[in-house]
Amino acid sequence: MSKILFPPPGSAAEAEEGRTLAPKFDVDGLVTCVATDAASGDVLMVAHMNAEALARTIETGEAWYFSRSRQALWRKGETSGHVQRVVEMRIDCDQDAVWIKVEQAGGAACHTGRRSCFYRAVPLRGPAGGVRLEFRDADKLFDPQVVYRNKS
Amino acid sequence: MSKILFPPPGSAAEAEEGRTLAPKFDVDGLVTCVATDAASGDVLMVAHMNAEALARTIETGEAWYFSRSRQALWRKGETSGHVQRVVEMRIDCDQDAVWIKVEQAGGAACHTGRRSCFYRAVPLRGPAGGVRLEFRDADKLFDPQVVYRNKS
Repeated sequence: MSKILFPPPGSAAEAEEGRTLAPKFDVDGLVTCVATDAASGDVLMVAHMNAEALARTIETGEAWYFSRSRQALWRKGETSGHVQRVVEMRIDCDQDAVWIKVEQAGGAACHTGRRSCFYRAVPLRGPAGGVRLEFRDADKLFDPQVVYRNKS
Repeated sequence: MSKILFPPPGSAAEAEEGRTLAPKFDVDGLVTCVATDAASGDVLMVAHMNAEALARTIETGEAWYFSRSRQALWRKGETSGHVQRVVEMRIDCDQDAVWIKVEQAGGAACHTGRRSCFYRAVPLRGPAGGVRLEFRDADKLFDPQVVYRNKS
């Protein structure tokens, strides 16, 4: 693992039209990362990467994140074994968000045991107050109480 | 537009397994929103919603965001005409991220004129330092200097 530092962000034009990766980390040093299933295209999860997580993901081709709740670098799957092999990585126009297409080991990205973290739908075109969520594709593929046992 | 207030977040178990929409807004009052193309599944953009943007999106079925740079509520397409019709909305396990599947008017979501904001790939499994981005699917479908003329 080389200790790389990404260059500081340039102008808006450089960020948008250039070939230099110069991520625009937020005040907490993070960029947003969206992971989609390389096969289905479904969004699996949204998380964050600091510079080291981004560098490790680029260098290893496996997804690393930064856990805001634990304030720690986090190799996806380090506890559960549900690693993510990155098939493609994209960066967005202003370089503050990353999209990775992944092959999800175990088929489940969510810590609740579901395939995707987005297992509930919000009904549309009605009052926003008192919305009742609808479970979709919410089968649990593993039991989190078993997978994360003694791993808090 | 009703003046709704979403309920405050409950426990982790309520957030993850409940049917109540109780978004976990960050310290700036925002949740992250990922918009994907309802047909191709590709990620079009990543943006943010405050409570009012989220409520308006739910009630109207068209995407509203909150612009962090302009600190203003933002109806997607209000200047460009490139509105997003929301086909489905999902919320994630801890209710701090939203996924919307959209039909993108004009075919282009990015302010640079591209279909998606993610028009550059980051090569993987090499040194993270000095990465050269690779343009992918980067054709401009409109000329931003025309579309946003006099609309700064």
